[in-house]
Amino acid sequence: MSDLPKNIVINEVGPREGFQMEPTFVATERKLELIEALAETGVGTIEITSFVNPKMVPNMAEAEEVAARVRRKPGVKYTAIWMNERGFRRAVAAGNLDIFGSLLLSASKAFVMRNKGWTPEQDEADQHRVVEMYRANGVKVQRANVAAAFGCNFEGDIPVSSVLSTVDRLMEIAATHGEVLECINLADTMSWATPLSIKRVVGAVRDRYPNVRIALHLHDTRGLAIANAFAGLEMGVDEFDSSVAGLGGCPFAGHKGAAGNVSTEDLVFLCQESGIETGINLENLIGAARLAERVVGHDLPGSVMKGGSLTALRNALSA
Amino acid sequence: MSDLPKNIVINEVGPREGFQMEPTFVATERKLELIEALAETGVGTIEITSFVNPKMVPNMAEAEEVAARVRRKPGVKYTAIWMNERGFRRAVAAGNLDIFGSLLLSASKAFVMRNKGWTPEQDEADQHRVVEMYRANGVKVQRANVAAAFGCNFEGDIPVSSVLSTVDRLMEIAATHGEVLECINLADTMSWATPLSIKRVVGAVRDRYPNVRIALHLHDTRGLAIANAFAGLEMGVDEFDSSVAGLGGCPFAGHKGAAGNVSTEDLVFLCQESGIETGINLENLIGAARLAERVVGHDLPGSVMKGGSLTALRNALSA
Repeated sequence: MSDLPKNIVINEVGPREGFQMEPTFVATERKLELIEALAETGVGTIEITSFVNPKMVPNMAEAEEVAARVRRKPGVKYTAIWMNERGFRRAVAAGNLDIFGSLLLSASKAFVMRNKGWTPEQDEADQHRVVEMYRANGVKVQRANVAAAFGCNFEGDIPVSSVLSTVDRLMEIAATHGEVLECINLADTMSWATPLSIKRVVGAVRDRYPNVRIALHLHDTRGLAIANAFAGLEMGVDEFDSSVAGLGGCPFAGHKGAAGNVSTEDLVFLCQESGIETGINLENLIGAARLAERVVGHDLPGSVMKGGSLTALRNALSA
Repeated sequence: MSDLPKNIVINEVGPREGFQMEPTFVATERKLELIEALAETGVGTIEITSFVNPKMVPNMAEAEEVAARVRRKPGVKYTAIWMNERGFRRAVAAGNLDIFGSLLLSASKAFVMRNKGWTPEQDEADQHRVVEMYRANGVKVQRANVAAAFGCNFEGDIPVSSVLSTVDRLMEIAATHGEVLECINLADTMSWATPLSIKRVVGAVRDRYPNVRIALHLHDTRGLAIANAFAGLEMGVDEFDSSVAGLGGCPFAGHKGAAGNVSTEDLVFLCQESGIETGINLENLIGAARLAERVVGHDLPGSVMKGGSLTALRNALSA
C-alpha cells in the first residue's frame, strides 16, 4: 500500500521563513530564544536567518548578529540562506554558521521573470556563476531547489516535463563544474500541490534520477500541506523542510495572509503515529511551537501545538 | 496507486456541529442566512440543527424555529440530529425537515460510559429501542455511526477488532428488527486517526461488509483531517461529513479550542484538484465559508477560504 521510509530528515526553516514575514521587528533576543529552543528538540538542521537586503526584509536586518550570538548545540547544523554573492559573503563573514551551497531554478518561467526580472537563460547563467563562487570558496554544492515545481500563480499548472527539464538543467550546471548533486528539493512555492501531483512529480523525478535524494518543501496556503507530506512519505521521500508552528508564508505568493510552510510539529506527529523516526522529541517541539506564538505575538497555524499529542494522552491513561 | 471514486457525497454538518460550539448565541436570522447560502453551493444535505437539551447546548435552543423558518431549496435535504426519543419527537413535530433514522454505537467503552453513563450493554439495549421508535414512526434506518472508531481520549488506541465488533453489533441490531443498514459512518470523534489507520480500519470494514457503503466523519484537532480524507478517498470512500470553514469541534474531546470537522471547502478543493466530482460549486462554497466567519464573529480554521481556489487563479491567467 505504501513505501514509507523508516527515518526522515527534517530541516527546520521556521526562524528564517517565519520571521521574514512578520510585519513588526522581532527582537534579536527573542529570535535566539526560539532558535535555542528548537535546538533542544533533536532537529538536525535549523535555518536561522537570511542575508538579504534589509530594506526588502527588515526582520533579517541583523542576520550577522543572529549568527554571531546563537549558542551552538553540538550536533545541530545552523544554516542560512542568501540570494546573491553579496549575501553569501556576508554569511561567510558572519562566522558561526554551517555554510552549504545550493542551486535554485524555477520550473515556472513566469515566476523567475516576476521574481528576478530574468529570462530562464539569464537565470541559468547566474547559477553557473553561483557554482563557481562556491567552488572558489571551498563550499560543496549539495542540494538543488526547484521552485514552483507543482504550479505557479503567474504561469498556472506546471507540466511534469517542465520539472524534469528543470532538474536536468540543474544536474548539467553542477556537472559542468565537476559537482554532483545529492539532493533535489522540490518546492511547492505557491501551494499548488495535491497528493496526486506530489506522487506524479516525485515518481517522475525518481524514475529519471533513481540515485538522487528527493526532498519536499511544502506550503499550506490551501490546507493540503500535511496530505502532500504524507503523499511524499508514501513515495519514499525522506527529507522535508518544515516550519515550527507553521510560521512563515511566501512573499511572492500573490495573496496576503497565506499560511506558512507545513508545520514541523504536525509533520513530526504524523511521522510518530506512522512509525517513522524523525529524531525529534515531539513534546519539546510543541513547547517550541507555543514559544513561537509568544515570540511573534499572534496565533500561528500549527494544529498539534493546540490539540496536543496522542502520546501525552496515552501516557495520561496509563499513569 | 489508488482507487479514487469518481463522485462523492458530502453531508454539510457545519450549522449543527459549528453553532453548538459557539459560546455566544448566534441569532436565528444569521443561522438561516448561512444555511441558505450553503443550499446555493450544490451540497445535497445540510444538517441544520439538533434537538437537544437547551440547557446543555444553548445555541440549539430554537431548533424548532430554525427548522420552521428555513426556506427550502428543491433538491436539498435539510436534516437534524437528536440524542433521544424526546429530541426525535421534537424534530418530527417541527416539520419542514427530512427525517432520517440512524444508529450509534461507540467503538470505545470508556467513551460511552463517560458520555452517557452507560455500559456497552445498556447502550446496545437503547439502540434496539431506537430502531423500534423509528419503525413505529415509519422512519427508515439507513445509516449507523461508529463513534471513536480510530481512538479515544478515555480509552486510548482502539483495535480494529473493536471497530469490527461494533459494526457487527450495529448490523445485528438492525437485522433483529428487519432493517438493513446501507451505510456505516466511521467517526474520528476525538481526532486520533492517521492516514494509515484510516486505510487499515476502512479496509477491514470493507473486507467484512463489501456491500455496505462506508462514510467518514473526520475531526481536525491534530491537523490530519484532510490527509485522512485523502486516505479515505484512496480506499474508495465516497461519503463524508464535513463542516463549512471547519466550523465546530467536539464537546467531549477533552480539550478546549479543538478544531472542528474537516473543512468542506478544503475537501471540495482536494476533490476538484483530484478529478473527483462533488456537485458543489467551490467559489460559492468559499463565499459561504467567509459568511460563516462573519456569522460567528471570529476566525475559522478553513484554508481555501483564505488562500483561494486554483480555478480562480487559472481563470485570471487565461482571461
